[in-house]
Amino acid sequence: MRLRKKPWADKEFAINDKLIEEPESMKGRWKEFFGNNNPIHLEIGCGKGQFIAKMSLRNPDINYIAAERQRLVIVTALRKSREMGTGNNLRFICVDVEHLLEYFEPGEIDRLYINFCDPWPRKKWAKRRLTHKNFLSIYEKLFIGGGEINFKTDNRGLFEFSLNEIEARNGWTMKNITLDLHNSEFEGNIMTEYEEKFSSKGMPIYRLEAYYNKQNI
Amino acid sequence: MRLRKKPWADKEFAINDKLIEEPESMKGRWKEFFGNNNPIHLEIGCGKGQFIAKMSLRNPDINYIAAERQRLVIVTALRKSREMGTGNNLRFICVDVEHLLEYFEPGEIDRLYINFCDPWPRKKWAKRRLTHKNFLSIYEKLFIGGGEINFKTDNRGLFEFSLNEIEARNGWTMKNITLDLHNSEFEGNIMTEYEEKFSSKGMPIYRLEAYYNKQNI
Repeated sequence: MRLRKKPWADKEFAINDKLIEEPESMKGRWKEFFGNNNPIHLEIGCGKGQFIAKMSLRNPDINYIAAERQRLVIVTALRKSREMGTGNNLRFICVDVEHLLEYFEPGEIDRLYINFCDPWPRKKWAKRRLTHKNFLSIYEKLFIGGGEINFKTDNRGLFEFSLNEIEARNGWTMKNITLDLHNSEFEGNIMTEYEEKFSSKGMPIYRLEAYYNKQNI
Repeated sequence: MRLRKKPWADKEFAINDKLIEEPESMKGRWKEFFGNNNPIHLEIGCGKGQFIAKMSLRNPDINYIAAERQRLVIVTALRKSREMGTGNNLRFICVDVEHLLEYFEPGEIDRLYINFCDPWPRKKWAKRRLTHKNFLSIYEKLFIGGGEINFKTDNRGLFEFSLNEIEARNGWTMKNITLDLHNSEFEGNIMTEYEEKFSSKGMPIYRLEAYYNKQNI
């Protein structure tokens, strides 16, 4: 995402209480922090934040954490979530996905959302794709006892890669694979900003759910 | 496929020795018939027969059987295989896929090719699709001890259905899933007549390999 200077960013950070500034201190304490025993769903790479804000408003009985690496991006998501009036079931963290296990105890996250992540199309970049087996290995540790990924992309190459990568991995099963989400029977889809723009051009959106259960191994 | 009258059909049936007229009598005797212990690969729905004829010429150490339901279609494949000078490692049978187990003992077939089968797009027709679980169940019996399907289609809906159907089934794993075969790294693809026509318009071809191994269950 191209980053413009945002003169309002500092003010947003100051007035917005949704960003957890030291997420490593929350490790193992997220349920306590949210104050309930609801499932916790984590979006990695929340971008401008429309998806997670809408999800949190629609599902008050689920706690949402939106992760984004860049402060200049997450500040837009913070502002949007504030303007949309999101509640206490949504928080943001500014972190790298590689370090997820520094912020969460195994078993703390029930579901991961990965929406329109960078496809890193060149072969030598494959390890950077968020569905590469090295990342799956991180998610497996996160999902001790079971968990799931909901993955969407408009990139055919990345989706193909992801299908093969997940299929090759022990303990995972996929469900509701669709090669054209907006013409499928899937109900209740919430679009990201990017998805709205892209699908309005008539291009297909790919989606899958991948379930991890160590007992399947 | 639209069927034209073929005044030359009777003559082709008369002079061509590649069609096995009573395939049920071959059950359990295919290796004996071919006179060697080579693997046997079966194409279900061979259409005009270019794929299986070329495959048989390229791989003399594999025995090929091409199945097609309609005599008025298989006769074209017979003529083509004769004109292309195919050898003793290729035979044809005119049968319905539902009855495969009447013609083969479990373990006789090592690989199935399913190329551009009818997508049966309406939901109420799902059971007719050759990757429906009912057909997978037939292939499982055929594959006792292990076997594989190589599946190609230009139909996105059918491919999506097939991914989900195979993934939901115990004992199967998929490999080399591609959403755009002709722009993939797959080497040595042999095209069907239909595939040549369709892909020349720039539309993507979908392909997957599905491996069945009872021990995976």
